[in-house]
Amino acid sequence: MNAEIIAIGSELLTPHRWDTNSLFLTAQLNQIGVDVVFKTVAGDDRSRLTETIALAWKRSDIVITIGGLGPTEDDVTRECVAAALGKRLQRDDSIAKRLASRFRSRGMMMPEINLRQAMVFEGAIVLPNQKGTAPGLWIEEKGKILILLPGPPRELHPMFQTDCIPRLEKLLPPSAIRTRVLRLTGLTESAADEMIAPVYTKYANPVTTILASLGEIQVHLKSTGADEAQAMALLDEVSPQLEKILRDYVFSNTGESLEEVAGKALRANGGTMATAESCTGGLLAQRITSVPGSSAYFLGGMVCYSNTIKKEWVGVAEKVLKDHGAVSAAVASALAEGVRRLAGSTFGVGITGIAGPDGGSAEKPVGLVYLAVAEAHGTQVLEKRYLGDRDTIRWQASQTALDMLRRALMRSVN
Amino acid sequence: MNAEIIAIGSELLTPHRWDTNSLFLTAQLNQIGVDVVFKTVAGDDRSRLTETIALAWKRSDIVITIGGLGPTEDDVTRECVAAALGKRLQRDDSIAKRLASRFRSRGMMMPEINLRQAMVFEGAIVLPNQKGTAPGLWIEEKGKILILLPGPPRELHPMFQTDCIPRLEKLLPPSAIRTRVLRLTGLTESAADEMIAPVYTKYANPVTTILASLGEIQVHLKSTGADEAQAMALLDEVSPQLEKILRDYVFSNTGESLEEVAGKALRANGGTMATAESCTGGLLAQRITSVPGSSAYFLGGMVCYSNTIKKEWVGVAEKVLKDHGAVSAAVASALAEGVRRLAGSTFGVGITGIAGPDGGSAEKPVGLVYLAVAEAHGTQVLEKRYLGDRDTIRWQASQTALDMLRRALMRSVN
Repeated sequence: MNAEIIAIGSELLTPHRWDTNSLFLTAQLNQIGVDVVFKTVAGDDRSRLTETIALAWKRSDIVITIGGLGPTEDDVTRECVAAALGKRLQRDDSIAKRLASRFRSRGMMMPEINLRQAMVFEGAIVLPNQKGTAPGLWIEEKGKILILLPGPPRELHPMFQTDCIPRLEKLLPPSAIRTRVLRLTGLTESAADEMIAPVYTKYANPVTTILASLGEIQVHLKSTGADEAQAMALLDEVSPQLEKILRDYVFSNTGESLEEVAGKALRANGGTMATAESCTGGLLAQRITSVPGSSAYFLGGMVCYSNTIKKEWVGVAEKVLKDHGAVSAAVASALAEGVRRLAGSTFGVGITGIAGPDGGSAEKPVGLVYLAVAEAHGTQVLEKRYLGDRDTIRWQASQTALDMLRRALMRSVN
Repeated sequence: MNAEIIAIGSELLTPHRWDTNSLFLTAQLNQIGVDVVFKTVAGDDRSRLTETIALAWKRSDIVITIGGLGPTEDDVTRECVAAALGKRLQRDDSIAKRLASRFRSRGMMMPEINLRQAMVFEGAIVLPNQKGTAPGLWIEEKGKILILLPGPPRELHPMFQTDCIPRLEKLLPPSAIRTRVLRLTGLTESAADEMIAPVYTKYANPVTTILASLGEIQVHLKSTGADEAQAMALLDEVSPQLEKILRDYVFSNTGESLEEVAGKALRANGGTMATAESCTGGLLAQRITSVPGSSAYFLGGMVCYSNTIKKEWVGVAEKVLKDHGAVSAAVASALAEGVRRLAGSTFGVGITGIAGPDGGSAEKPVGLVYLAVAEAHGTQVLEKRYLGDRDTIRWQASQTALDMLRRALMRSVN
């Protein structure tokens, strides 16, 4: 069975609010083997919403509406579902009584308008709301299901978990969906695809999707099985094959970020680190220290923007700066080695480059960055030419530096 | 005219990713008087996506698709639009050439599959992509518009602002919507509202909205006039009244970020700065250096995680650390004064605190942060107790530090 989610409310069509309920519902549905195939956000325009519900009812097995169950005039979900499915609304006196007593218990009279929340469809199941006034509704017809849920997450979550998931499970063939995400850096999307397509295209289950973001590629595997064990077995069959092809480009198959992976490796081998950054301006240190517990391995960092600071703080020699320029492999090495010595750490990382938008030349264009990782037995340097704007270049440089560190740690383990 | 946005990608139907592009597009469209009436998220199932596009094309004036323009097999937007609108795709050789040269400039051969990105519709306008490989497409037919945009925000944003908004403006009836955003820090949302509600509630035009984000409040004014001059005059009538009430809590009325405002003030008075950060781990330096040209006033920064580094690098006295602990007003001052002296800068900023999740105690709980700004004539220190997780605490601390610097600069100007 597949599902479709309709989030209702004009505020969800402004630049300032977005629907997060559907993420929760999707996670819950995936657990019991239901795919979400459409998500729609609609306002409280009655004709548009009625059409949207009618279409969903036609094309999807399970339709879930979120919101629009309040007492006011712009809470139109009940009326629009009635119109879309050709159903009549009638007052449920037990709900009306509960509503009235809820108001009384808070020392208030129930406004007449709240009786709208006691209107239900003939034959529908009422889903009690433990946390608010609007009850949910469950309609089952010709093997299809329509569920009306209230918008506030603290009302929707328990209602869906307690009253909907068990009902759905009874109707579904036993099945489970499981996902695994391989995170990679150092490859382009198309290169990764060319490498693994020969394998993943052989499998319809799990479904493999490749996603690119800045300095990272993700390979998503999604398997469907009769139960969790079967779904996991499908992942365990395909994922290792892809990981073998993608080799050490894969930095995580558990969802961990590059800074978490590098930090964990440092922790595991008892190492420490320090950073000396020019063009990234502290971004590398900030990413490393964003991981809880990073004080166990991160000792300190320097942001050396001016040449004077590079000399006076990190001890980069005047001659090196003069002979090679501040943006050079020699200065990146001197920064990595200098900060390693100053901090007394196992690793030192140095970055110097031109993040732009100004400061580039024909010989040293914007995007040129040198990165160095210093260890006891020597220093490794990379020259990179990144494309993009200032933020993009800085991010990619921090990503490369973390990956160099990860690879240095892999070598020192082996 | 109204608009409908379709975000495409199976990853947007998982619990892990959601569409943020539509928020940006909605803000942009609202600016020119276009309402968004539907948002849909669809996967890369060809028949479902084709139906969705056909329906949108029927019911809305402007249809915008996001994503699915990449080079791989599951990037199906072009094909589905072709099917939904009954259009043919053909290769555009100039795009193919640009793609190939982009790969060459990075010393790579273009994989054959990337040629999919050179396929365009007959009669469509190609929207150049300054930040990536996938060009956008613009189809205009019978007074309706369909725009295909790439998914990565850094590609979508400039393409929409540069190539779509001006084209849309030409097609819309002359009326102008103008907005002004006052950016504030140091007040809560409800305090700001209480202060200015007596004024803004007197005006239906401009419409005033107050939005809260982490460490910042924004007051949005939106005016509608027959033309730009009229819309601007409405803003110019109301905005100064609000700014007067909100005084120096307002750091910008032009959209500038706090780091830009502080940087501009430093530049204007010929000052320089340096930072010494413990719990923020480089975030402050990173924010300051994210501003192009910041090398004119930012000399350097230190991230001093361990006590040893605080002593050896910044010269915090052993006795101060022992008597007060690393998280104390005395250490914040010593960091600010120490790094100011080491860098020879006009200002020194010091931050020390407990970002959590561990390391807190009854006396010094998670969220306790001391911030100091040192100048020639003395040092100002603040104690703050922030709520939230590690990232939230670190962000708020960097926000307070920037605001302290801004206020110190305002004083030194007066």
